Amino acid sequence: MGTTTTARPRLVIIGGGFAGLTLARALKGAEVEITLLDRRNHHLFQPLLYQVATASLSPADIAWPIRKVLSKQANARVLLGEAVRIDAARKMVVMTDGELPYDMLALCAGVSHSYFGHDEWAALAPGLKSVEDAVEIRRRFLLAFEAAERETDAAARKARLTFIVIGGGPTGVELAGAMVEIARRAIPADFRSIDTTSARILLIEGGTRLLGTFPEDLSARAKRDLEKLGVEIMLGKHVTHIDEHGVLVGEERIESRNVLWAAGVAASPLAGTIGLATDRAGRLTVNPDLTLPGHPEIFVLGDLAVVTDARTGNVVPGIAPAAMQMGRHAARVIRQRLAGRSAAGAAGAFAYHDKGMLATIGRARAVGVMGKLHLRGLLAWLLWAGVHISYLISARSRIIVLVQWAWEYLLFQRGARLITGDTDLHLRDAKPKR
Amino acid sequence: MGTTTTARPRLVIIGGGFAGLTLARALKGAEVEITLLDRRNHHLFQPLLYQVATASLSPADIAWPIRKVLSKQANARVLLGEAVRIDAARKMVVMTDGELPYDMLALCAGVSHSYFGHDEWAALAPGLKSVEDAVEIRRRFLLAFEAAERETDAAARKARLTFIVIGGGPTGVELAGAMVEIARRAIPADFRSIDTTSARILLIEGGTRLLGTFPEDLSARAKRDLEKLGVEIMLGKHVTHIDEHGVLVGEERIESRNVLWAAGVAASPLAGTIGLATDRAGRLTVNPDLTLPGHPEIFVLGDLAVVTDARTGNVVPGIAPAAMQMGRHAARVIRQRLAGRSAAGAAGAFAYHDKGMLATIGRARAVGVMGKLHLRGLLAWLLWAGVHISYLISARSRIIVLVQWAWEYLLFQRGARLITGDTDLHLRDAKPKR
Repeated sequence: MGTTTTARPRLVIIGGGFAGLTLARALKGAEVEITLLDRRNHHLFQPLLYQVATASLSPADIAWPIRKVLSKQANARVLLGEAVRIDAARKMVVMTDGELPYDMLALCAGVSHSYFGHDEWAALAPGLKSVEDAVEIRRRFLLAFEAAERETDAAARKARLTFIVIGGGPTGVELAGAMVEIARRAIPADFRSIDTTSARILLIEGGTRLLGTFPEDLSARAKRDLEKLGVEIMLGKHVTHIDEHGVLVGEERIESRNVLWAAGVAASPLAGTIGLATDRAGRLTVNPDLTLPGHPEIFVLGDLAVVTDARTGNVVPGIAPAAMQMGRHAARVIRQRLAGRSAAGAAGAFAYHDKGMLATIGRARAVGVMGKLHLRGLLAWLLWAGVHISYLISARSRIIVLVQWAWEYLLFQRGARLITGDTDLHLRDAKPKR
Repeated sequence: MGTTTTARPRLVIIGGGFAGLTLARALKGAEVEITLLDRRNHHLFQPLLYQVATASLSPADIAWPIRKVLSKQANARVLLGEAVRIDAARKMVVMTDGELPYDMLALCAGVSHSYFGHDEWAALAPGLKSVEDAVEIRRRFLLAFEAAERETDAAARKARLTFIVIGGGPTGVELAGAMVEIARRAIPADFRSIDTTSARILLIEGGTRLLGTFPEDLSARAKRDLEKLGVEIMLGKHVTHIDEHGVLVGEERIESRNVLWAAGVAASPLAGTIGLATDRAGRLTVNPDLTLPGHPEIFVLGDLAVVTDARTGNVVPGIAPAAMQMGRHAARVIRQRLAGRSAAGAAGAFAYHDKGMLATIGRARAVGVMGKLHLRGLLAWLLWAGVHISYLISARSRIIVLVQWAWEYLLFQRGARLITGDTDLHLRDAKPKR
C-alpha cells in the first residue's frame, strides 16, 4: 500500500504525541494517505510520567504502541524513524536513513529539556520527557537510599539523602510531592542504618511562586500543602552551578547527589530547519488556522506551535488538552480542503476551549482551576484521578492504573520499586558499612 | 543495628533469588544476624521472565524490592553490592567495594548463560536471566517487525522476520510459543507492508527431544502443540556459528537477524573462588545437609549446588521449587545448630519433594508432570497459571498479572509492547521505504 501511486494527498505527521496522534485519528476515513513518523514505537501519556519516575507505575501502563492505536485505520501507516530536517522547497522530510515526500505536513515533534545554555547539566540533572528519562530518574532516586544505607560518613550520607528538584511548575511540584511521600511513608521500615524520613527534598523555583500558570491562591495552597508534607521550597532563587556533589543556589552551596531538572523546555530542533524565524524557545508562530505563514501545506501543532487563541487573544498553553484540540482543528481544516472548501471557512481560526488545569500534590491532594472555579485538596485530587484515568488510551491500562493507585492509597506501597541498569554508578564512592 | 557488636552469629546470604530469600524468611525470629547481599535491589520471579521478553508483563509485575520483602524482619538487613570472592580462610566476603565478615555463609548466587566457550555469541544471541535481558529481548523482537516494515529487499525482509531460539528446554519452548502467537495473532493488523503471519520461528535443540527433563510423551506433545502453532522445530541439531546475519546449523546456513539463547547455563563465578573443585558447569557439590565438604559454615543452595536427593539418590533439578526447599532446609539446619543440637539430626539430609514440573506452550496450553500424572492442554495451562499466580510475592502483582492475562487471553493483545533504549541499532541498514 505504501508504494502504490494514488491520487490521495500524502499527509506526513511527525510525532505521535497528543497533537499528532489526535490528528491522525480525527482523519479516520478521510481521503488522505497518512504516514505517522516517530522515533519511538509508543505514544506516551506524559501527564503520568512522573509516576513512573517515582515508582508508582510501570512504563507500559502509560505507553501504547502507536501501531496498535492506528491498526484499524486503513488510511494511516506508522513508520519508526527519525526526521532530521524539513526540506520545505522539495516538500520532503529528510530522515536519518532516507526521505519521505509529502503533500501536507503536520509538525508535532514537541519539546525537550532546555538547560538554558548549560548543556553540561544534562548528565548531572536529568529531566523528565521520555520513558527512558523516567526510568533513569527512578534508578537514581532509589539508588540514593541504597548508597546512603552503606555510607558511614555523616556528611556524605546527608548529601545522598538530599534531593533537589529545579523548577516549580506542575512536573516539579508532582515530583517533589511524590518523593517526600516515599521517603516519609513508603520506605522507612525497609532500611536499617538510615532514617529515610530525614531525607531533605528541596524544590527550587526562579519565579516568585509555584505553578506560575495557575491562579495565585492555588500557588499558595500548593506551597502550603507541599511544606506540610515536608518539602522545603525556595522561591525567587536560581541555580547557578551544578556539579556531581551539589548545586549553587545564588551564593549558597547545597551538597546533594540527586538533582532533577523540571525547569525549561526547548522546541524540537526540527522547527529550526524549515527556514522560518523561531521564538526564543525555538518554537514556530503559526497562522490562526495553525499553518505556517507562506506554507499552507505545513501545520505546526502542540507544544511546538505559538498559537494565539482566536477567542481571547492569549497564547495557548503547552498542555495536552490544547495539543489534542489543535490536532482536531487541523483535521477539520484538512477535511474542508479535501472537500474543496476554503481553508478560511468556519474551521479556519483555532479557538482554545480552556477546560482547566490540575496538578497533584502527593497522595490525595491536588489543586485545579476550571473557569472561575478554584479546586483544592481531596476533591481536586479525585477530579485529577478521574480525568487522568479516563484519558488513558486502553481499558487495560485504566484497570491496572486503578489497581496500582488503590494499593498505593490504602497501603502507602509503591508497585514499581525497580532499579534496572547500572547499580554501581552512584555507589562507587560510598564507603562500605560492616 | 548493623554496626553494633552482638553475640548472635552473622549469616551472610549472597543472592536474593528463590533460595536466598526463602532462607532469610525462614529464619524470621531466629537468633542470627542476617545480611542479604545482592547486586540488584529486587527479587525476580524468573519463571515468568519470558513474559516480559514477549511483551505480556512489565518488569515490576514480577520483581519486588528485597528490602520490602524483609522490611518487617528485624534480624535481617539488605545490602546492595557485588561479591567478587569468598575468602573462606578469613571468613570474609570480598565485594567490589569492601569486605563483609561472616560466621555462616549461604552462597545462593545462581547461574547465568553459558555460551559453551563462544562468549562472542553473547551480544549476538542474548539470553534470558535478568530484567535487563528481558527488556533487551523485547526490544529486539519488536524492532524486528519495525525494521521489516521499512525493508524493501525481500531477502533482507525475510531475515528480519526469521526468529531463531536456541535451546529446547522450558525457556526456549515458552519463548518460541509466545513469539509465534504474537506474530500470528496479536500484531498482523498493525502493519501495512509486511505480513507478520509469514514470520518464521525456529526452535533448535541439540538433544533428541524438547523438554529433556520431562517424560517423553509430554516432549512429543509439546512438539506437536508448538508445530500446530507454527513453530519449526529442529531436533538433534547444533548451532556451530552465529554472526550478525544468521546462524549455521550443522552445514545449513539460515539467514536471521534475531537469535535468542536459551541453551546453556553456567554457575556464578563466585563458586570457583572458594578453592574447592567445581563440576563442568562450575557448580559445587555439597554434603547431604547442603554444606560444603570441610566447611560446615558454608551452605550452597539453589542452582549453584549439586545436591543428591537423600530419598531417591537422583540429582535435584535446578528449578525454583527445589531452590526454595533448599532454603527452608538450610534454615532448619541453622536453627538446630543455634539450639545446640547436632547438624546430623533429623533435618540433616536434604530430601527433595518433587511437586512436578510445568511448561507453557502458547496461550492456553501447557504440559506438566505431577508424580505419575501427565497433564497437557488447557487443564495443564490452568494449573500452570494458578501455581504461578499463587507464587507471586505480592497480592498487588497477583491482581495485575491476572488482569493482563485475562486481557491477553480474551483479546489476543499484549500489554507491554514497548521499545525503550536505542531504536536505531537494528534499523541501521534497513532501506527506507517510501
